[in-house]
Amino acid sequence: MIFASDNWSGASPKVVEAVAEAAKRGGPAYGTDPLTKVVEGRFSELFEREVAVFPVGTGTIANSLALSHFARPGAVVLAHREAHILVDEPGSTEFFGAGMRPVGLDGVNGKLTPAGLVAGFERFPAGNTFHGNPVVVTLTQMTELGTVYHPEEVAALAGIAHERGAAVHMDGARFSSAVAGLGVAPADITWRAGVDVMSFGGTKNGCLAAEAVVFFDPARAAGFAVARQRAGQTFSKGWFLAAQYDAYLGGGHWLELAGHARDMGRDLAAVIDASRVARLAVRPAANELFAFVRSDALERVRAAGAVLHPWNTVSLPADAVPAEGEQLVRLVTSFATTADEVAHFAEVLEG
Amino acid sequence: MIFASDNWSGASPKVVEAVAEAAKRGGPAYGTDPLTKVVEGRFSELFEREVAVFPVGTGTIANSLALSHFARPGAVVLAHREAHILVDEPGSTEFFGAGMRPVGLDGVNGKLTPAGLVAGFERFPAGNTFHGNPVVVTLTQMTELGTVYHPEEVAALAGIAHERGAAVHMDGARFSSAVAGLGVAPADITWRAGVDVMSFGGTKNGCLAAEAVVFFDPARAAGFAVARQRAGQTFSKGWFLAAQYDAYLGGGHWLELAGHARDMGRDLAAVIDASRVARLAVRPAANELFAFVRSDALERVRAAGAVLHPWNTVSLPADAVPAEGEQLVRLVTSFATTADEVAHFAEVLEG
Amino acid sequence: MIFASDNWSGASPKVVEAVAEAAKRGGPAYGTDPLTKVVEGRFSELFEREVAVFPVGTGTIANSLALSHFARPGAVVLAHREAHILVDEPGSTEFFGAGMRPVGLDGVNGKLTPAGLVAGFERFPAGNTFHGNPVVVTLTQMTELGTVYHPEEVAALAGIAHERGAAVHMDGARFSSAVAGLGVAPADITWRAGVDVMSFGGTKNGCLAAEAVVFFDPARAAGFAVARQRAGQTFSKGWFLAAQYDAYLGGGHWLELAGHARDMGRDLAAVIDASRVARLAVRPAANELFAFVRSDALERVRAAGAVLHPWNTVSLPADAVPAEGEQLVRLVTSFATTADEVAHFAEVLEG
Amino acid sequence: MIFASDNWSGASPKVVEAVAEAAKRGGPAYGTDPLTKVVEGRFSELFEREVAVFPVGTGTIANSLALSHFARPGAVVLAHREAHILVDEPGSTEFFGAGMRPVGLDGVNGKLTPAGLVAGFERFPAGNTFHGNPVVVTLTQMTELGTVYHPEEVAALAGIAHERGAAVHMDGARFSSAVAGLGVAPADITWRAGVDVMSFGGTKNGCLAAEAVVFFDPARAAGFAVARQRAGQTFSKGWFLAAQYDAYLGGGHWLELAGHARDMGRDLAAVIDASRVARLAVRPAANELFAFVRSDALERVRAAGAVLHPWNTVSLPADAVPAEGEQLVRLVTSFATTADEVAHFAEVLEG
Repeated sequence: MIFASDNWSGASPKVVEAVAEAAKRGGPAYGTDPLTKVVEGRFSELFEREVAVFPVGTGTIANSLALSHFARPGAVVLAHREAHILVDEPGSTEFFGAGMRPVGLDGVNGKLTPAGLVAGFERFPAGNTFHGNPVVVTLTQMTELGTVYHPEEVAALAGIAHERGAAVHMDGARFSSAVAGLGVAPADITWRAGVDVMSFGGTKNGCLAAEAVVFFDPARAAGFAVARQRAGQTFSKGWFLAAQYDAYLGGGHWLELAGHARDMGRDLAAVIDASRVARLAVRPAANELFAFVRSDALERVRAAGAVLHPWNTVSLPADAVPAEGEQLVRLVTSFATTADEVAHFAEVLEG
Repeated sequence: MIFASDNWSGASPKVVEAVAEAAKRGGPAYGTDPLTKVVEGRFSELFEREVAVFPVGTGTIANSLALSHFARPGAVVLAHREAHILVDEPGSTEFFGAGMRPVGLDGVNGKLTPAGLVAGFERFPAGNTFHGNPVVVTLTQMTELGTVYHPEEVAALAGIAHERGAAVHMDGARFSSAVAGLGVAPADITWRAGVDVMSFGGTKNGCLAAEAVVFFDPARAAGFAVARQRAGQTFSKGWFLAAQYDAYLGGGHWLELAGHARDMGRDLAAVIDASRVARLAVRPAANELFAFVRSDALERVRAAGAVLHPWNTVSLPADAVPAEGEQLVRLVTSFATTADEVAHFAEVLEG
Repeated sequence: MIFASDNWSGASPKVVEAVAEAAKRGGPAYGTDPLTKVVEGRFSELFEREVAVFPVGTGTIANSLALSHFARPGAVVLAHREAHILVDEPGSTEFFGAGMRPVGLDGVNGKLTPAGLVAGFERFPAGNTFHGNPVVVTLTQMTELGTVYHPEEVAALAGIAHERGAAVHMDGARFSSAVAGLGVAPADITWRAGVDVMSFGGTKNGCLAAEAVVFFDPARAAGFAVARQRAGQTFSKGWFLAAQYDAYLGGGHWLELAGHARDMGRDLAAVIDASRVARLAVRPAANELFAFVRSDALERVRAAGAVLHPWNTVSLPADAVPAEGEQLVRLVTSFATTADEVAHFAEVLEG
Repeated sequence: MIFASDNWSGASPKVVEAVAEAAKRGGPAYGTDPLTKVVEGRFSELFEREVAVFPVGTGTIANSLALSHFARPGAVVLAHREAHILVDEPGSTEFFGAGMRPVGLDGVNGKLTPAGLVAGFERFPAGNTFHGNPVVVTLTQMTELGTVYHPEEVAALAGIAHERGAAVHMDGARFSSAVAGLGVAPADITWRAGVDVMSFGGTKNGCLAAEAVVFFDPARAAGFAVARQRAGQTFSKGWFLAAQYDAYLGGGHWLELAGHARDMGRDLAAVIDASRVARLAVRPAANELFAFVRSDALERVRAAGAVLHPWNTVSLPADAVPAEGEQLVRLVTSFATTADEVAHFAEVLEG
């Protein structure tokens, strides 16, 4: 009953097997191997256009390097106030962006709103040399609250950004969850909706360590290979990252994995909806749930071996407040979650 | 006949197997898993003292983060002029050190000398606010020229550094080669000789992607965990790095691998010593060779499938100059090099 | 009728005269001249203890360098949400602090509160490697809202910071206004109340360009001279900065200047209090006023030559909201403001 | 007999008077005052084309900010090995350039040579992501060895840089000396010869503190105003810098000052040429001299009050080596040096 995070799971056997196979062969270093080339093709196929792909080791560096690509003196990144870059990356945007400032905005249900984004831009009038200038807007898809942006929501926000000369980044550490939750084509919630660059996560959905920065217009990636090298993110055995993505993207494996995680998340949501001792704080889109749980029930599931984290989110809907004796917790299912785990949790929860 | 680099090889089956096993289990994220704990113990055992270990993804980031730990305004790193940080890391020390300046010094046989190091320090008088102040000396072990520092050489240089208030870093991307070449205890060429912190490489010797920053005095590592996190080098599935090191260090596997690479290097050196068309430019310590090869012979081996790089090294001994018609090349053997490859190379070389 | 800002005024004749005198003599470069030594003594006398003083050219660099002295990976600066470092310095803290993150907190009347500061610290639990760690708290004295921290208020906030291992910085761009407004000894609202380092402004109160970073414990200033040099803030003709401070601090001239500005501010406040078309939004402590003015009156004073800026402050008291037809403006008096200007303004304002 | 440096002199009375006048008036802050506008015109007139001018406080920041304008990951600056940025700015280029690396090249008589510059570029093949990529070449005019680049020398070097996609910066801390020494139009040794941006110094030639970054193509200065603001170099009383440049450039005052310094330098060179106890190490172009002086004579002039610095320059011509008993010293004359000082020095030198 591990609901702590999807990064507590191991890795998909298919992904591991691909790495093992590649390890028998080896190949030219620093991403010049054939498998990396294959993976570049897989990404272009996935997104229905030619893209530029830069595999890296972690989500934090994918975000930091992608955002830093737009850095200049006084540069500001507009983000949801609970975005990973503001809460879980200790100054990474500021550091890799050489002084770039992430500014947190309020949202609704974990998502930036058009009005909120416009207001964010208005704090930084064009031409002003004192306040800073927004150069990129970042959206987290799936959001930190387990919700998703619909294609038209992404498009509205991207339009606002582009009109004001800012680029659009998507933090897709849980992109696969969003795709599984929405049931849309990856292209439809990215470049077709105006996203310029994204962090494409694999680790939370069955890879060992595989994240990638994807530029939807390869011409805009100029210089990024050096930036990645400088950051110590050009792996000499590049086939190790490529092998993961090859297996992950091949044959729709990534959506199988994410689909399972989503289904387990929905089952878990149903358990909570039916519970007398717990209730959802926000309606989940896929595999990340926030729930208010009665303290005695929480003690009970933990005693039975459930792992789940207490949470503190300021972006819950205004009417989602814990009642006396309730605590807010987060539950995340993954590709490895089993129906038995969910069933056991249901049983224990009710006591 | 791949002699391009030891990072062109695949990975050791034992290492891959360990990763596959760990991937079945998963575990708590960000290095809080039990296997990471085990690996910390393995490192302490290896170095015969309690050390602080921080696994990361690449050698460049291991060097950059280790050196940046000593950064302050005006900080200078003294290094051999052909050190990896000066030649193959495009501003990484400067970037992660927030303006830290690596300064290249001349050496002999790829190694810093006591006199050269003293002269390096003398360019930066203490208290001067204009020139910069050396805060750390970095030694590459095995060196970029395939040679090694003997324990007393390390000790002499470390003594000079410590007397002047500077720390000592060892770039051990090929540390295993050095240990295999020297036949000494790891402790003897590191902390017992005065090394304060090192980059401990695994990737070039059979791992997939496993490097580590090792502080020999854990008290001096304060704050490093956050620096690693900020740099996007705290892998969420920390057990993936730990599993590699567990297999790599367990049962002396790392020295088996390095010993094999060294033996293949020595066989290859013997081939070249016996050749009429090639000669060593410098006596190798283990698995990295520099040789002058007649151009026709070079064409011949390449036509037969040998992969080896032309090289340009300003740190060759003064009397090592190519004759008319000779080219300088680098040949690297690895854990995966076979006796057949060496034999085949010998055969083709002579024509 | 220039009420735009105190930095629109020229410079005090005494200060200019001192510069002219020093310019006849010249002297050793980079702050090794005798006048710089004299000024160091003047600062120590002013603060009733030995201090370390580093003159620089602007308030932005004084703040940035002072704060960066406490930087380390993941470092956070806690500040009022309208602090100059957050609103008027475009990423300077982030840049000079090499990724340091300033975090804005709510306050009351432009001032941080003990409860707000405690809550700020609580967002960053000690030992957490994801969120960042507060290393310094900055207080603006006089505040951006024209109010002042009383000695016991500074002491309460400094105590909270120190208990949590953070240093305390004071942005004193208008420190002279605060001293004039409060009528206290400089020592009482700085080190005696727990301030560790401050930006001591002279420019807004009659100097040409004279700011200084003052460390109240000289031992904590180690390395700062190099940081200043690296930042391009060690003026070769150091006597130029020293001459200004010599005249400014000598014979209490700085308090004469600030006292006059405060008196003009109080007269102007009286004018507004008596007005039928304007009212104060917050009670001013000295020479910086925020007022709601009826639009027709605002047009009238501007037509008559008054220069004053519209303002947008989110930190006004909750009950200070503009009525229909009112606009918020800022008015600043200075050492050069005349009684005639104030009288003329009064006359024109009422129409 | 102050020959320590031209920055030991006071300031030109005309410059000081202009500051005093401006201080009576004051004006809009942050460079929006009318005098700053006038000065922009003066610079455009001086250079015979429209230029973009950014006054700052010191030469170190003029260099650092100008160079950082071309920074990107992996960026390299090619410079003479004794350039100020490498010897007297403790990591400023690295810091402001966010990891930019200055690389020192050998030269002749303190000047880069075409062959040396080409060789410098060849160390960094285009497209290579490991070694770094030169983005800007910096030339010091007048050089650190007191020599000057002739227009055709600048043009040759600039041509090499531009062909390889790099910009050309001129460190003109002593630009006035170069112009006075060469007797050419400022345009002829800057943009007409291919210089893209320069640091235009005033401080060493009679200003209090006045340096400026000049972009010869204003369109290339985009974003620089924010960079300057972020660096804490946008002075609120911008008229203070403008007043200096107004007086300095008006009526050719700057060349009067530099011409006098040059004449004094030539007289001093004549004294040394005629001496039995001293000889020039290199032929000076204007006011900065390097000489070998017999130790007894050196003691004698110092006892008589002469201030001059011992020097250590590796860029002296190969045949310029001190004889037994000789020491290398630097002597700098300035706008304030008197004929009496030179005559007195001549007298004392010979004993």
